[in-house]
Amino acid sequence: MYDRLKGFRDFYPEEMAARREVIDTVETACRRYGFRETASPHLERAEMWTDKAGEGIVEELYAFGDRSDRHVTLTPELTPTAARMVAAKQQELSKPIKWFSTRPFWRYEQVQQGRFREFYQTNIDIFGSSDPRADAEVIALGAELLTDLGLDGDDFEFRVSHRDILGSVLRSFDVDIDVRDAIRAVDKSEKIDTAEYHDLLADAGLSYDQAAEFDDLITATTRDSLDDLAEFAGSDDAHAAVENLTAVLDAVDRFGASDHCELSLETARGFDYYTGVVFECFDSTGEVSRSVFGGGRYDDLIESFGGEPTPAVGFAPGYATLPLLLQRAGVYPDEAVATDYYVLQVGDTEREAAELTRELREREYVVETDVSGRSFGAQLGYADSINAETVVIVGEQDLADDQYTLRDMETGEQRTVSVDEFPPESGGPADDA
Amino acid sequence: MYDRLKGFRDFYPEEMAARREVIDTVETACRRYGFRETASPHLERAEMWTDKAGEGIVEELYAFGDRSDRHVTLTPELTPTAARMVAAKQQELSKPIKWFSTRPFWRYEQVQQGRFREFYQTNIDIFGSSDPRADAEVIALGAELLTDLGLDGDDFEFRVSHRDILGSVLRSFDVDIDVRDAIRAVDKSEKIDTAEYHDLLADAGLSYDQAAEFDDLITATTRDSLDDLAEFAGSDDAHAAVENLTAVLDAVDRFGASDHCELSLETARGFDYYTGVVFECFDSTGEVSRSVFGGGRYDDLIESFGGEPTPAVGFAPGYATLPLLLQRAGVYPDEAVATDYYVLQVGDTEREAAELTRELREREYVVETDVSGRSFGAQLGYADSINAETVVIVGEQDLADDQYTLRDMETGEQRTVSVDEFPPESGGPADDA
Repeated sequence: MYDRLKGFRDFYPEEMAARREVIDTVETACRRYGFRETASPHLERAEMWTDKAGEGIVEELYAFGDRSDRHVTLTPELTPTAARMVAAKQQELSKPIKWFSTRPFWRYEQVQQGRFREFYQTNIDIFGSSDPRADAEVIALGAELLTDLGLDGDDFEFRVSHRDILGSVLRSFDVDIDVRDAIRAVDKSEKIDTAEYHDLLADAGLSYDQAAEFDDLITATTRDSLDDLAEFAGSDDAHAAVENLTAVLDAVDRFGASDHCELSLETARGFDYYTGVVFECFDSTGEVSRSVFGGGRYDDLIESFGGEPTPAVGFAPGYATLPLLLQRAGVYPDEAVATDYYVLQVGDTEREAAELTRELREREYVVETDVSGRSFGAQLGYADSINAETVVIVGEQDLADDQYTLRDMETGEQRTVSVDEFPPESGGPADDA
Repeated sequence: MYDRLKGFRDFYPEEMAARREVIDTVETACRRYGFRETASPHLERAEMWTDKAGEGIVEELYAFGDRSDRHVTLTPELTPTAARMVAAKQQELSKPIKWFSTRPFWRYEQVQQGRFREFYQTNIDIFGSSDPRADAEVIALGAELLTDLGLDGDDFEFRVSHRDILGSVLRSFDVDIDVRDAIRAVDKSEKIDTAEYHDLLADAGLSYDQAAEFDDLITATTRDSLDDLAEFAGSDDAHAAVENLTAVLDAVDRFGASDHCELSLETARGFDYYTGVVFECFDSTGEVSRSVFGGGRYDDLIESFGGEPTPAVGFAPGYATLPLLLQRAGVYPDEAVATDYYVLQVGDTEREAAELTRELREREYVVETDVSGRSFGAQLGYADSINAETVVIVGEQDLADDQYTLRDMETGEQRTVSVDEFPPESGGPADDA
């Protein structure tokens, strides 16, 4: 027997049924918002990542030489691929470009709870609009897909921040500070203790007094005191960033999602490429301690991959972490398969059972029948194992009386129906809905 | 600019919309038949293929050493993975196991029309039933998903054959014949000329007279003369195989799919692992000259991968070839995105436009609105580019009169509606259907 690779998963039907329901709900929300599905290669030139390095992704690549010695890699994320696709049809694509796609990615990471080497995400992005409404639409969609999944406003919160506010405040202390390193420190601040956090800020170029003041400032800032923070920073950049964040939050409000959002400048997102608004979704109860997903604006990235300057904003819910929140809130779908009818054959009734099976399938029901030549009991056991709602018993004796026996599998009750009256003329899952 | 790898494809929204419709139709048919979705790793231990070799797949593997020097490969097909999954839960899984999954596979092949290095298939299999009804259900599902896709009975045909009939007839000529090689010759017979075909049969151990006789026999055999062929072969195997094939065809008839099937012993399927009934789907007009897809019974394969002996039958429509048939028949879906409403903002109407957008999305319509701050004309152009059916113009003047203007994008006609009456209380795409 061969074994599965570490960090890779098999999804059997029960588990997959729940995952499919979650993914379908997410994708349906995307479609309603006018995001369009794309698909893309799972293997790309490794240079798309190694040329930029950064973030340790390079050390985690599944990279190798192909049979023509191209240096290729399994894709660890979608962004460079999306950038390549946008750049390749820059002229033809009408803006804004609103895309989503659900697919696997691969990183050679330490395997732990909720972290795998093969993982699935839905990437959701708007390219070609720098308007705050684009940021807001992305955040509103993020909130809506969570409520569509059954979560309440009490279950989750989006912590919204802005890279340029953090950057301009940091630069107001010292123009030579390493803003990237400092922002990475902010991103880590919730996972480490204060002394360690201030050490990291000091490494980035702040004095310890400045580190403490910076920490106090961004922690204390509320939406109402954003202008004060801009005054403190004193630069045009700071004022522009505050204006931008305020415009995004106003637009989020108009899209009806402001109840799910709070200003939180301690939120920074780890990736260097973000340029404006960033946000992370958290479990309000804190039981799921890590960020459920996050996103933000990355206006420089497409250009850095060789495209024309193209503003972009997006996020990517993943199906390793999202289920943890849904399970915590008790709204993760049942891990069970569903079957409307099992058509049970007894005696020489193959033809009639097959015909009835066809009729029910034509009405769009999920239907199984015996394809193994098994006994009544074995068929009933199988029908139970696939959660059949109703078993239709097609027996010789019943057929002689022009009837079937219907067994409700939940109650165990049986009743006979006339062959002419089943299945009813109208009906089918569409009508049941 | 980075380029895409040869043989790999980007799918932009228009093309993807058509592909998604095709894949959805196929998967919906699978679900109705009680097949359950699974998902599985895209990377596996390379030994799962290299230990068996065969079929040239080994030379086409995207194989490499991972960061712990495991010899791994992008999966070139699903069967060994499915075998591993069945074997891993042999006791827990209730039989028959009916699975489907849609996913990419990779082979380093020569790229040509309809053949790519990354290609997508829906694998559809029944494990755990050797009954002819299982073969028949698989064939019936194959026919049904094609008719669901809009094809007529005249558009395609399933050519049904049986490995053991071919094998027992071949052995009746000479017990020492290399049956595998001879069956591979049969598989190639339509693509090569008769002399070459007979050469291959001779290589497998037949005399040229026997090759000609064999060729005549299997070409001339009809469903009615199958028993004569078994008599000719004279073995118990031959009679059992004819009985099995007849039972499958009878069951196909009961499932209502016999109009799509014809007996064709010249059909053999290239892969060595098939053990019983095999079939291939062809374009009836011959315009698409290659097999659209094929499948069959492979009862020994699970065991060969370390599982318990488990009969299996299945097939795998692929999304490189299937579209060729659908396009030939004129039923391939439009490569176009669809949008129910575009909400157009004019003047200071952001709040009202955002609220209307929310209301329409709540009714499950596909809705876009301006997220770029653009002019009336630019918004109308964008609405046209996304094929919006209706543009709702939310203008200051109209709002002062408590109304919106609706523009039918096909006719260009405009009318005003009262803000109170739009969107109507009931309605939504579900009701429209």
